[in-house]
Amino acid sequence: MSSETSKTVDSQALQAEVNRLKLELQTLQVEDRSEEIFLGNYLLTRLEQLGVKSMFGVPGDFNLGFLDLVEDHPTIDWIGNCNELNASYAADGYARVKEQSLGVLLTTFGVGELSAINGIAGAFSEMVPVLHIAGVPSTTQQKSKPMLHHTLGDGRYDAYLKAAAQFTISQADLTNAASAASEIDRVLVDCIVHARPTYLTLPTDLVYTKISSERLKIPLSHLPPPNDADEEEFVISEIEKLVNEADNDVVVLVDACAIRHDARKELREMIEKTQFPVYSAPMGKSVVAETYERYGGIYVGSISHPEIKEKVESAKLILSIGSLKSDFNSGNFTYSIPTMRTVELHSSWTKVKYAEFPGIGMKQLLPKLTQRLHAYNALARQIEVPKFVANVPQEEDDVISHNWFWPRMSGFFKPKDIIVAETGTSSFGILDVPLPNDAVFLAQILWGSIGWTVGSTLGAALAGRELGLGRTILFIGDGSLQLTVQEFTSMLKKDLKPIIFVLNNSGYTIERYLHGKTRHYNDIVNWKWTSLLSVLGDEDGTKSKSYTVKNKAELSELLDNSSFANADVMQLVEVIMPMHDAPRALQVQAELSGKTNKYVA
Amino acid sequence: MSSETSKTVDSQALQAEVNRLKLELQTLQVEDRSEEIFLGNYLLTRLEQLGVKSMFGVPGDFNLGFLDLVEDHPTIDWIGNCNELNASYAADGYARVKEQSLGVLLTTFGVGELSAINGIAGAFSEMVPVLHIAGVPSTTQQKSKPMLHHTLGDGRYDAYLKAAAQFTISQADLTNAASAASEIDRVLVDCIVHARPTYLTLPTDLVYTKISSERLKIPLSHLPPPNDADEEEFVISEIEKLVNEADNDVVVLVDACAIRHDARKELREMIEKTQFPVYSAPMGKSVVAETYERYGGIYVGSISHPEIKEKVESAKLILSIGSLKSDFNSGNFTYSIPTMRTVELHSSWTKVKYAEFPGIGMKQLLPKLTQRLHAYNALARQIEVPKFVANVPQEEDDVISHNWFWPRMSGFFKPKDIIVAETGTSSFGILDVPLPNDAVFLAQILWGSIGWTVGSTLGAALAGRELGLGRTILFIGDGSLQLTVQEFTSMLKKDLKPIIFVLNNSGYTIERYLHGKTRHYNDIVNWKWTSLLSVLGDEDGTKSKSYTVKNKAELSELLDNSSFANADVMQLVEVIMPMHDAPRALQVQAELSGKTNKYVA
Repeated sequence: MSSETSKTVDSQALQAEVNRLKLELQTLQVEDRSEEIFLGNYLLTRLEQLGVKSMFGVPGDFNLGFLDLVEDHPTIDWIGNCNELNASYAADGYARVKEQSLGVLLTTFGVGELSAINGIAGAFSEMVPVLHIAGVPSTTQQKSKPMLHHTLGDGRYDAYLKAAAQFTISQADLTNAASAASEIDRVLVDCIVHARPTYLTLPTDLVYTKISSERLKIPLSHLPPPNDADEEEFVISEIEKLVNEADNDVVVLVDACAIRHDARKELREMIEKTQFPVYSAPMGKSVVAETYERYGGIYVGSISHPEIKEKVESAKLILSIGSLKSDFNSGNFTYSIPTMRTVELHSSWTKVKYAEFPGIGMKQLLPKLTQRLHAYNALARQIEVPKFVANVPQEEDDVISHNWFWPRMSGFFKPKDIIVAETGTSSFGILDVPLPNDAVFLAQILWGSIGWTVGSTLGAALAGRELGLGRTILFIGDGSLQLTVQEFTSMLKKDLKPIIFVLNNSGYTIERYLHGKTRHYNDIVNWKWTSLLSVLGDEDGTKSKSYTVKNKAELSELLDNSSFANADVMQLVEVIMPMHDAPRALQVQAELSGKTNKYVA
Repeated sequence: MSSETSKTVDSQALQAEVNRLKLELQTLQVEDRSEEIFLGNYLLTRLEQLGVKSMFGVPGDFNLGFLDLVEDHPTIDWIGNCNELNASYAADGYARVKEQSLGVLLTTFGVGELSAINGIAGAFSEMVPVLHIAGVPSTTQQKSKPMLHHTLGDGRYDAYLKAAAQFTISQADLTNAASAASEIDRVLVDCIVHARPTYLTLPTDLVYTKISSERLKIPLSHLPPPNDADEEEFVISEIEKLVNEADNDVVVLVDACAIRHDARKELREMIEKTQFPVYSAPMGKSVVAETYERYGGIYVGSISHPEIKEKVESAKLILSIGSLKSDFNSGNFTYSIPTMRTVELHSSWTKVKYAEFPGIGMKQLLPKLTQRLHAYNALARQIEVPKFVANVPQEEDDVISHNWFWPRMSGFFKPKDIIVAETGTSSFGILDVPLPNDAVFLAQILWGSIGWTVGSTLGAALAGRELGLGRTILFIGDGSLQLTVQEFTSMLKKDLKPIIFVLNNSGYTIERYLHGKTRHYNDIVNWKWTSLLSVLGDEDGTKSKSYTVKNKAELSELLDNSSFANADVMQLVEVIMPMHDAPRALQVQAELSGKTNKYVA
């Protein structure tokens, strides 16, 4: 029941607020020193409470003491990555799949933490809750600042923190035991409430300092503060008025922040109760089940299929949920939706036409809106929604074209699959393919760091296993895979069984489309892709299988093979594709960016 | 002749100063618009003038236009790395071998540049001249700040520059054509004079903007400003007085900065003319030929061989040249040399006992000092210097121990070899081994980022080929190699023929010595090391050979094989070593760091 959801969300938010206040109070009170634990274990208990079961990173001499505690922890598993960038990507992928929890990355001072900074910046950009813990020299050394290895040689012990501050929303530089617990809680809460990375230094000596465990009795919550009731009621009335005026021509457009700020459930209830037609931006793909009868597919400005473009842009009112208008998420800024016809719901604010309402967040607003708009469903149902289907085209040749490949993959997916698409041909290609129910879709459409999916597939597969989800399926190009390939090792080590499709098209295809179609700088060296897994950790060949498919028939046969589809071992499929082919959406996007981003005079 | 060297260095420094002033003047003058060239080509011409023949990096959509110019440039070769961290390591390795030139790294906005930041910070820490060029959005976009891919989504277009500023000594954020040439010159001069990384943004539109080529007629110089003549004379007299007072008991101790600030030649002349006994810190290894009769080996505080320790610490005067007292370079800060017996020569200052002389740099001071101290050589020669030799021990078993391995390698090295040692067992193990004449030694003893040597070997091998040096030989552990392995691909692509010794000892051995000897977090997954090269680019097997050696006899046989030693193809040798063995120096260092850096309470 909508009203129940509404009450639940409200009371949960209130409880969270009560807890936050209790914690603030406790920070000011004299500590109960009766039950003391290692500071390192305080942190681990907090992570355990928040559902963290896997920790990513690389050992280094300033985090080894803490690693003893991690290794001895009964429910948190140390993954141990091949390098720190991959580890940060893995923490990101893990956090995306384990909604309401977070990803945790542990690195060492300087060399380790800086190697991970691109991954952390990506989590910032794409709004993913990742806690970056850097093991740092002891508090004594940080005061005397000796010229230790991993330092810049000039005594600037704060340089790494300053860099981290650019890409995290809050930082805690632990310097003493007295404030450590409240500092840890602060960065954890910031991380999960705002869905952004935070940064925590862990000096070697503090890890084994004893602190009170009293605060651990009060749980931390990712729920935002409650909306102001009067203002919320006003906003709802305003929105209802607009819905009313729009007759039955209302469209819901869902986007990234509905996933990131944990409004998936509330949103789904809203669209089911109201029966409004719903479309998704690329970064909102899979928020709403793509098989849902009132779902019409992907809206991405000028790149949209003409029918979708027409339906969305001509609607009298667009309820935009969690919008994030980046270039690749908006068809290079070609939305044609006037503000006068738009209501925007965000994590912590709402916008009705031009009026902004800071502090009114969607998580609590949505259930109440659903209650009020429920009544319009009979009218809403009259609006037709295009069917979102992927038809496998009949092509004359046997070449595996993008045009054929992506619709063909659609039939291979199963409910609860985790589908990861690398920036480039894969992230554009998969847009036009409907995913099954409860599928989880991962792509880095705003940040777009190539190579990200290898690490994030590791994290996603671990999270998927913890949550009992289905297979993890990665689509990646040959160029991107070369950046981060070693992380296959960690997948084998942890007995994960992802299916990896390597699109072998001889280089950086997305770059070729943007510029330099025949330039050598877009070439890469060809690898023996099907030997990778046996070299990188499957020594006796029992943990993996690899395949090359050169034409449509070979790929179809493999996809139809139930042993392959069951994914009982890790599998890699090298898919031979033409060098200069690309999905439709990428071709259009490249044309559009070429216009705004000139490469030559 | 010493006096000639002195005159040459002085007049070169004066000429460099004249040129700098001319360039400053030109910045203020109205430009001659007669001969205009693309801004991108202005930069490339400057790099060409400075001896750059290889450029490292990864293509990305904000640097593709500039890459067209690079690819079309007649003498600068685009290497095209597998990822940006590896590229930054390669630029570092290149710069270390091509003294007086610099390394150049090209990345793309955000995702690319941040992935390289650890490599840049390492170049800062270790004082290596690397120019980091980031291809960034057009000047128009930087003003309007749209939510482009590779941005943080919050309009902070300056976040990457702010992070870069922590790890580079100067930055140029190009915003218009008028100041571009002088800005480019400024970061280039800072880079080569101070031997530190600098950062340059290259907006897509400016690359093809035309600017005057007039300034290119005045060359840029890495020479520091001339010393003040009177002050310099005073300093020399002070030093001579101390040498006199020390009777004949003077010792020269050379270190990193003598290499980094291009004083190798002046230093060698000094020690040959004066005949003072000379020792080297780990980071100064190979500055002085290790076969030189007056060279006694490595001084590293308490970790030194007892005879070396005694000789250095008991000397009445220590002339310290280019000292850098980091933990691993000083036996964990265990120098026992009182200030009252020390003269320190640095790149831009001098210290005599407690008196500091800012502005008196060693490059120009050394030749004059040589002239004055020449007369003491007969006395100096009376001081005995221990022979620096590596005796291969007779061991009962056939296991490849560190104790045996490193002295055994000594006989394999040839003059002009480039020898690269990864942080950990390799960088410690090689300390006790004398290198042949004109060998170049690379290690990252201060920064200590594991995996660095793979990229730096690529850069070093390219530089070595350009300079006509000998073989490039890398020593790396299995754990470190996993971080950056894909860069083998670039070595194969560029037909380089390094010899790579992979010390397979089942994990992070240096960490095991520091803490967690039997902990699982120090384990790694074993790879099929000898299949790596065939998988990563040697498709037909003609470009590489791989070997496994399990005992002393197998390794000796391989080293004695002339076809192996000739290094006509790229070669990888998997060396099976015991898990818990380590070189003597690492064992002592680990004990010492354990005392100062406690991991448990």
